[in-house]
Amino acid sequence: MEIKGFKFAAVEAAIKKPGRKDLALIYSETPALVAAVFTTNKVKAAPVLLDEERVKACNCRALVVNSGNANACTGAKGMADAVEAARLVAEKLGVAEESVLVASTGVIGVPLPMDRLRGAIPALAGKLGTSTLDDIASAIMTTDTFPKLETRQGTAGGKVYTIAGVAKGAGMIMPNMATMLAFLVTDAALEPAFLWQAFRAGVDRSFNAITVDGDTSTNDTALIMANGRAENPSLAAGTADAAQFVALLNDILLSLAKQIVRDGEGATKFVEIRVRGSVSDAEARLAAMAVANSNLVKTAFFGQDANWGRIFAAVGYSGAKVDQTRTELFFDDVRMVKDGIFAGGDAEVRGTEVLQRKEFTVTVDLHMGEGEATVYTSDLSYEYVKINADYRT
Amino acid sequence: MEIKGFKFAAVEAAIKKPGRKDLALIYSETPALVAAVFTTNKVKAAPVLLDEERVKACNCRALVVNSGNANACTGAKGMADAVEAARLVAEKLGVAEESVLVASTGVIGVPLPMDRLRGAIPALAGKLGTSTLDDIASAIMTTDTFPKLETRQGTAGGKVYTIAGVAKGAGMIMPNMATMLAFLVTDAALEPAFLWQAFRAGVDRSFNAITVDGDTSTNDTALIMANGRAENPSLAAGTADAAQFVALLNDILLSLAKQIVRDGEGATKFVEIRVRGSVSDAEARLAAMAVANSNLVKTAFFGQDANWGRIFAAVGYSGAKVDQTRTELFFDDVRMVKDGIFAGGDAEVRGTEVLQRKEFTVTVDLHMGEGEATVYTSDLSYEYVKINADYRT
Repeated sequence: MEIKGFKFAAVEAAIKKPGRKDLALIYSETPALVAAVFTTNKVKAAPVLLDEERVKACNCRALVVNSGNANACTGAKGMADAVEAARLVAEKLGVAEESVLVASTGVIGVPLPMDRLRGAIPALAGKLGTSTLDDIASAIMTTDTFPKLETRQGTAGGKVYTIAGVAKGAGMIMPNMATMLAFLVTDAALEPAFLWQAFRAGVDRSFNAITVDGDTSTNDTALIMANGRAENPSLAAGTADAAQFVALLNDILLSLAKQIVRDGEGATKFVEIRVRGSVSDAEARLAAMAVANSNLVKTAFFGQDANWGRIFAAVGYSGAKVDQTRTELFFDDVRMVKDGIFAGGDAEVRGTEVLQRKEFTVTVDLHMGEGEATVYTSDLSYEYVKINADYRT
Repeated sequence: MEIKGFKFAAVEAAIKKPGRKDLALIYSETPALVAAVFTTNKVKAAPVLLDEERVKACNCRALVVNSGNANACTGAKGMADAVEAARLVAEKLGVAEESVLVASTGVIGVPLPMDRLRGAIPALAGKLGTSTLDDIASAIMTTDTFPKLETRQGTAGGKVYTIAGVAKGAGMIMPNMATMLAFLVTDAALEPAFLWQAFRAGVDRSFNAITVDGDTSTNDTALIMANGRAENPSLAAGTADAAQFVALLNDILLSLAKQIVRDGEGATKFVEIRVRGSVSDAEARLAAMAVANSNLVKTAFFGQDANWGRIFAAVGYSGAKVDQTRTELFFDDVRMVKDGIFAGGDAEVRGTEVLQRKEFTVTVDLHMGEGEATVYTSDLSYEYVKINADYRT
């Protein structure tokens, strides 16, 4: 699928294992708006620190991304390397240095192999247009087991536009790895304030609503480039066309986020955690995240054990207001708990059947108010421990 | 070792597996002061709710504790059962109902088997004096692999006194289990305000400074009974004798807490996490707890992987103030990170040697201020997943 005015390239720069592309370029023929959200970790990788500055005023032309090395905890040299990588790309493309963003994913604490980047960047720029967004999705993988890609088309003012995005895995899918990356491109024309607002809100309900292991990386980056080449009337908040754009954007973001959870480290289950009836949405989110991050809950999911007591306990320590005599709990449509105690009947048998499914929903109703939140998580398996313990031994 | 005026009993009540004692009684011949700290989980087991009330004004005479059933998430029936268990004990001992405390540990959400308790309590009371505190340590075990006991003796005003304590495992050592319990007894005479203050502060530096899996249970209870039968001049804050008592009490609390971590689910490592140079002790604690609870850090410990980047990342998302260019990180005495980047030299080889030890210390110096904190944790192993996933399947 064409996204007007965008070109792609991906090459092997020998940063990760031989035989795998690990350096990719997204290029817009004309200056693009950019909106972005970065890790909240106070330890930030060099490319994050650089991009945080550049997106403030970016008429963005390109993004260069490598896998195999996170360029995190690499000090002043790390920042100099990120700046140099962007400059080398800018020189080859004939665009302003500040219009090039960078991203990295991979091992923490090891300097970027700049000799290899210096050799590979000219070839990368020379190959622009020979790759598709699918190739970018593959080039940013580390030990992700499948590439993550989603596209949608909409119309605005009679013009067809496209939104497309790629992402790589949450959690530290490859040992020593620490990155969730997502890059979206669209040829829709948009007002900057509208794009930022829509993107931030969408990320909050998608990438910020997933957890594999509760660890927030040093490199998390989600960004969208919008070059307006669909030539639709520029979208601003409050119109039907803008609402359609938001809906399509959210579809893509949520699809990519769910793909990341499904490909979580060692995951055998995909679980939606819904909390409702909380005193606020924020408290519902606290409760849902506590359940989604509890090792005891996640091992019970892996063991297909309808162990509602662990979920109840996690809600109890989450910080959300709880009246333990009111709580209701469901596995899909099976009510396990009513008024804070076991619902009885055949709930145990039917609840266990639900947990044997590959995907299911846990719903907790606190009956305290109108707050609600949904998060997505995986289980905690032997394979998770293996992936994360056995890397160097 | 005798603790003057205390008697113990333990019997089989068939609450857990046959052949294991699961009902225990601690009795003071004369009224004892009591200080206690309970779970902060908003979902609290019935015995916790009952004891929270009773310790406010307790001239405590007895504590009855069962393993195999947590009496949590059991509603009004659970509270009635806890009250009845205490009443049955009180009747047999001829003491006031309100002077009897109760504690439970085991499966959540299943009512106590009151028929068995009604049958066993008379036998339990009849056997008072036939057991030692060692037997109590064994009777409160679920799948703990060893009993946890510690004693110390001190002198005050020329009188020898004894402090002794037992504990059972943190984390949910047996699947479906959710309890950390610790019971201390002393024959020292103490002022109530001094005892409460010393106990609370001691628990904060011991049981509140350990984590196996980050899950706070519904039943956590730590309490001390002090009957004054050593006949020393009553201890109050500010004297040398009081300082000695505090030191001995802290020894016992920390020893029991460390025993719980060493016996953590599937644990193969015991790791002390020290954070110093934080802007406050509270922030140092945030950072240390984030490291101690990170699955990625804990799997690296299991894999004996000197993966300092994961520790650095956990400090970064902990909420503590961090300047990533100042941070220093050590494995025992090996400096891995200086000024936020890899220290170089032979740090990788020597750091890996440290992680091959069964016990080691991780020190993070933030170089931001004077705050410091220490917490204790275990690793995350295949066995942890097995214990918690395979219970019912």
